[in-house]
Amino acid sequence: MDKDSLYTLVRNVLDEMRERPIPLGISNRHLHLCAEDYAHLFPGQPIGKKKALLQPEQYAAEQTVTLVGPKGQIENVRLLGPLRSASQVEISRSDARALGVAAPLRSSGDLKGTPGLRLVSPFAELELASGVIVARRHIHMSPLDALILRVSHGDTVAVAIKGDDRQLVFDNVDIRVSPDMRLELHIDTDEANAAGADNPLAFATLVNR
Amino acid sequence: MDKDSLYTLVRNVLDEMRERPIPLGISNRHLHLCAEDYAHLFPGQPIGKKKALLQPEQYAAEQTVTLVGPKGQIENVRLLGPLRSASQVEISRSDARALGVAAPLRSSGDLKGTPGLRLVSPFAELELASGVIVARRHIHMSPLDALILRVSHGDTVAVAIKGDDRQLVFDNVDIRVSPDMRLELHIDTDEANAAGADNPLAFATLVNR
Repeated sequence: MDKDSLYTLVRNVLDEMRERPIPLGISNRHLHLCAEDYAHLFPGQPIGKKKALLQPEQYAAEQTVTLVGPKGQIENVRLLGPLRSASQVEISRSDARALGVAAPLRSSGDLKGTPGLRLVSPFAELELASGVIVARRHIHMSPLDALILRVSHGDTVAVAIKGDDRQLVFDNVDIRVSPDMRLELHIDTDEANAAGADNPLAFATLVNR
Repeated sequence: MDKDSLYTLVRNVLDEMRERPIPLGISNRHLHLCAEDYAHLFPGQPIGKKKALLQPEQYAAEQTVTLVGPKGQIENVRLLGPLRSASQVEISRSDARALGVAAPLRSSGDLKGTPGLRLVSPFAELELASGVIVARRHIHMSPLDALILRVSHGDTVAVAIKGDDRQLVFDNVDIRVSPDMRLELHIDTDEANAAGADNPLAFATLVNR
């Protein structure tokens, strides 16, 4: 095979890979805990792994808490493991309204100035001082995915969701590149409901503009 | 003014009108009732007008009911007036999940084969046999608006929502033209939350593709 043919072949393969659907991950309300807050809420208990998530090492834990806000409460909110350096509660705007908490739109870990919430486990209570956010939609990917999709960490892209009559295009989707991440679009339940994404036929693709 | 200048002037005015933001109406869960169901739930009581809506003759009534589904219930769901020929409950997909009702995505009035729900007023209960839907997003407009925007009744268009970092483009927005309607995009709370539309700076515009 000559050099030009090889180049064309590689380009065609890359073009085809770029068209592949991006796996969709719909994040229901959940929380992450630091070791200290976990020990307070679940004293003497190891974290139980209920279900592995697509992202390596990440899992839904057996443990759940009740979120208590000034206007309402939501039960059975699942802890995701492993433990982190700071506790963080990720809710939808529907949840924020039901709880009465002005949770801002933030990237995971960007918790400065965010409101708190009361967490209640079967064993203890905890007044979280801050850490309640609505997550910015984002795509996790490996450096190889980023190379194929021609994007870089920190970029924002537009993503089309197709699946039912609520088809739409999300602007301002953050790109997060990390060697230990798998390709996956993360949106919350409000976004999934608005896009008809909670549907086995739904898929996501990058929009080239 | 000669004919060409006049033509150019009119075209420029129309082009400018086409760029104007479309007023945004966010529909929270609500219901419409037929006269018979209203009389059953609120015996001997006239409908109270609480607040006029943008669409002529439409209003939020004083009356509210509780929706009771197999998995949960939602209180204080507002009746919209005037009464209609068929009862209809419009909820978000978040609500549908909380209630445990498989409400399909439908246009208002397209109720064939839709599920029912129990309605509870302070005076009576009613087992609605059908009429529970998630509303398809749509734009109400007058024939003049349709002329300006170059769309027809029954078209579907794409609409961009701008306002915060959740900016997006909704595909499949139905056009509904009627002489007694004012220009207004109707989306539900899930869609508003996903689009950052519950924000005083948010606005909608048609997308030309």
